[in-house]
Amino acid sequence: MTPDEFRTLGHQLVDWIADYRAGLADRPVAPDVQPGAIKARLPAAPPERPEDFAGVFADLDQLILPGLMHWQHPSFFGFFPANAGSASVLGDWLSTGLGVLGLSWQAAPALTELEEVVVDWLRQMVGLSPSWKGVIQDTASTCTLVALICARERTTDFSLARGGLQGEAQPLIVYTSEQAHSSVLKAAVLAGFGRDNVRAIATDSDYALSPNALRDAIRRDLAQGHRPCAVVATTGTTATTAMDPIHDIAAITNEHSLWLHVDAAMAGSAMILPECRHLWHGIESADSLVINAHKWLGAAFDCSLYYVRDVEHLVRVMSTNPSYLQSSADGRATNYRDWGIPLGRRFRALKLWCLIRGEGVEGLRSRLRRDLANAQWLAEQVRATPDWRVVAPVQLQTVCVRHEPPGLQGEALDRHTLDWVERVNKSGRGFLTPAILEGRWMARVSIAAEATEREHVAALWGEMRRH
Amino acid sequence: MTPDEFRTLGHQLVDWIADYRAGLADRPVAPDVQPGAIKARLPAAPPERPEDFAGVFADLDQLILPGLMHWQHPSFFGFFPANAGSASVLGDWLSTGLGVLGLSWQAAPALTELEEVVVDWLRQMVGLSPSWKGVIQDTASTCTLVALICARERTTDFSLARGGLQGEAQPLIVYTSEQAHSSVLKAAVLAGFGRDNVRAIATDSDYALSPNALRDAIRRDLAQGHRPCAVVATTGTTATTAMDPIHDIAAITNEHSLWLHVDAAMAGSAMILPECRHLWHGIESADSLVINAHKWLGAAFDCSLYYVRDVEHLVRVMSTNPSYLQSSADGRATNYRDWGIPLGRRFRALKLWCLIRGEGVEGLRSRLRRDLANAQWLAEQVRATPDWRVVAPVQLQTVCVRHEPPGLQGEALDRHTLDWVERVNKSGRGFLTPAILEGRWMARVSIAAEATEREHVAALWGEMRRH
Repeated sequence: MTPDEFRTLGHQLVDWIADYRAGLADRPVAPDVQPGAIKARLPAAPPERPEDFAGVFADLDQLILPGLMHWQHPSFFGFFPANAGSASVLGDWLSTGLGVLGLSWQAAPALTELEEVVVDWLRQMVGLSPSWKGVIQDTASTCTLVALICARERTTDFSLARGGLQGEAQPLIVYTSEQAHSSVLKAAVLAGFGRDNVRAIATDSDYALSPNALRDAIRRDLAQGHRPCAVVATTGTTATTAMDPIHDIAAITNEHSLWLHVDAAMAGSAMILPECRHLWHGIESADSLVINAHKWLGAAFDCSLYYVRDVEHLVRVMSTNPSYLQSSADGRATNYRDWGIPLGRRFRALKLWCLIRGEGVEGLRSRLRRDLANAQWLAEQVRATPDWRVVAPVQLQTVCVRHEPPGLQGEALDRHTLDWVERVNKSGRGFLTPAILEGRWMARVSIAAEATEREHVAALWGEMRRH
Repeated sequence: MTPDEFRTLGHQLVDWIADYRAGLADRPVAPDVQPGAIKARLPAAPPERPEDFAGVFADLDQLILPGLMHWQHPSFFGFFPANAGSASVLGDWLSTGLGVLGLSWQAAPALTELEEVVVDWLRQMVGLSPSWKGVIQDTASTCTLVALICARERTTDFSLARGGLQGEAQPLIVYTSEQAHSSVLKAAVLAGFGRDNVRAIATDSDYALSPNALRDAIRRDLAQGHRPCAVVATTGTTATTAMDPIHDIAAITNEHSLWLHVDAAMAGSAMILPECRHLWHGIESADSLVINAHKWLGAAFDCSLYYVRDVEHLVRVMSTNPSYLQSSADGRATNYRDWGIPLGRRFRALKLWCLIRGEGVEGLRSRLRRDLANAQWLAEQVRATPDWRVVAPVQLQTVCVRHEPPGLQGEALDRHTLDWVERVNKSGRGFLTPAILEGRWMARVSIAAEATEREHVAALWGEMRRH
């Protein structure tokens, strides 16, 4: 591809994406497609000769778009808001276009230093003290894995420098709530703890981790000669956006010298609102935390911010220092390769930088407040309507609901829930994710796509009642 | 940012990137900047109100570009080629612009199915049999971590479902060559094996792993009651692009039922050339392998292809299945979340799809052949010049050289090497990475940036002699 062709196609692409985004509301939110159908229409073998890019645009229109869930759609209420705000998209385009790689500070100094700056901007925005230092990782799953490996190494006084976890006689234990994200269990087993050594702690009536149950579990483990190692608390659980009581949990982790990791992947964004910060009261006592700027806040995926208070410990766990990566700047500069698993890194700071500059902190705050108000509005409508029920506290932008017609219970109620949710989803006029709460299916309405205004929430509520 | 502003700025951005790429040859390859200098010029606090994007472009020109190493520069000979080919850039821009997320097949069907197709295209391009299935991960570091966790679980018959690695009495051992990439040791210690249980096997005169030394090490471990678990072989080492003898290593891993992971991060791209495939002869006997399409091949970072033969095992190690991710398509579709560590995934297939369609396999092959010829040409010049020496076999596109003036030895020679390399790098007219080989510094000339033609290699050779 010549430089001129690249320029011409780049302009076509900008118009194609701008048109796609402008026309999103007219598309069905979720696709109507069967597994394998798209694959069957794609060539099984790669082309030997270059193809005209017009064919790519044609395939995008005819094959790819009809096969996608549209996460940026104003009527997308599924999973969580994965906003890729316009300014952030521009920042990520810059990153890809520059094509630079941050293997070390020397390999791309501005990449590292801008990351240091924007990660500190976000720290200030969510009200964390300057004792926290951060780095951008891909996802919260990875951050939680890093956190549990760091916890493992603190408890074992660096077993990795010796025989590893396999040299440890007394099993190390990880605690998390039964409402924690699946990535916590996954991280624990990948880090070698084993399923038998992960405790799912009971929650209270608001689906938040019960400090008393945690205390009891630790006591039982100590009595059996086990070694309590880490607690993963959640600020904004996946199912209901429940808030584990960080302050009370931190009192326990401090007492027993346990690592406290806070999964604020979803709700961390809300902490740019001072009125929400009570929801993670006690956060300054944690050892590590993750905030996904690629969710509600609006940074294009992937942009997980991992903050720690003890950088030296993180680097000691993660560092390697081969000759081909050494430079004269070592020791005077940050080498983010030693802050996580991958060696190579994109210039991810650009998308967060562009987002914050393009919207301003005030702009971001007012969008999040709009979403909180929309969630409260929907909850009020649901509560005021016979046979409809809000089944969990509405702490932020997720409303968990069930339609409970008289006489429907148990599995019949489950079937009814899954049926009406599927009908809404198939209508193309909204998309919700069902989830299990206390053994029963319910529907999560996750409000907060960037384009979602009150009218879209109202339209969804209409659809919900119609189905 | 309004849709109209986004469109206008998008067009500006395309021109800015196209201009940047067109003008790369006129910039110094490496920046002249001290640690902290860029950070000091950036605002310490985020802006409250939205800023005009003109300020972003101004900062990019004045602050960011002068602070970057230019990896796409025709005179970039450092580290490895991290080509972000134009067609691939367009593909990645599409991914960011669409803003969809592949948490599961249902969450973005076309994202999953296009990934299945292009990963199979690359499988065919490098001549692997259809028994291999692949997935796109971020980096080889992550792929090797996944491979070693899978090895750990095969050897322990799924200790993760029980007490984890800490329940294992006899230590598991990982073998790799002393020339292996630092990510292998990092992966082993993160996976809990411990440094004491990682064996650095000696290499032969070509810096390739010695099968005899491997066999001896396994014998010693068995005699001590240890459990050999995995071998990580390298196709194209970082320092010299050495090729471990996969066929001979596989005979040993088969005999002892060890996991064989092949790190072909760098040299895997070369396998699109049939004449290079003898370099990984025996690859069909491996259990897993990684090819970084974001290196020589030209896909914008990040695009590591991880291939395995036993998908069921991979999924059993990596899967979690919470209610909020279940859908009616489960069991009939691929859920890539169960093929690696992160849950969320970008539409990374687009950049590989666009690259292959835009260049054609033939186009990619001829570019790689150009690079191989350039490396041979440089090696000939070096060999024909007094006091200059090629210090390792030139198997692909990396030429390892030393200038050895009479009488210079030991540390004095090291100082000389680091000095002249630094002078080349500071000139701005080329960038090389020094590395240690058999205890002595040498200079790696890694040829193969997309824009690098013979003239650029010749110019670098002139600079090298001048300094």
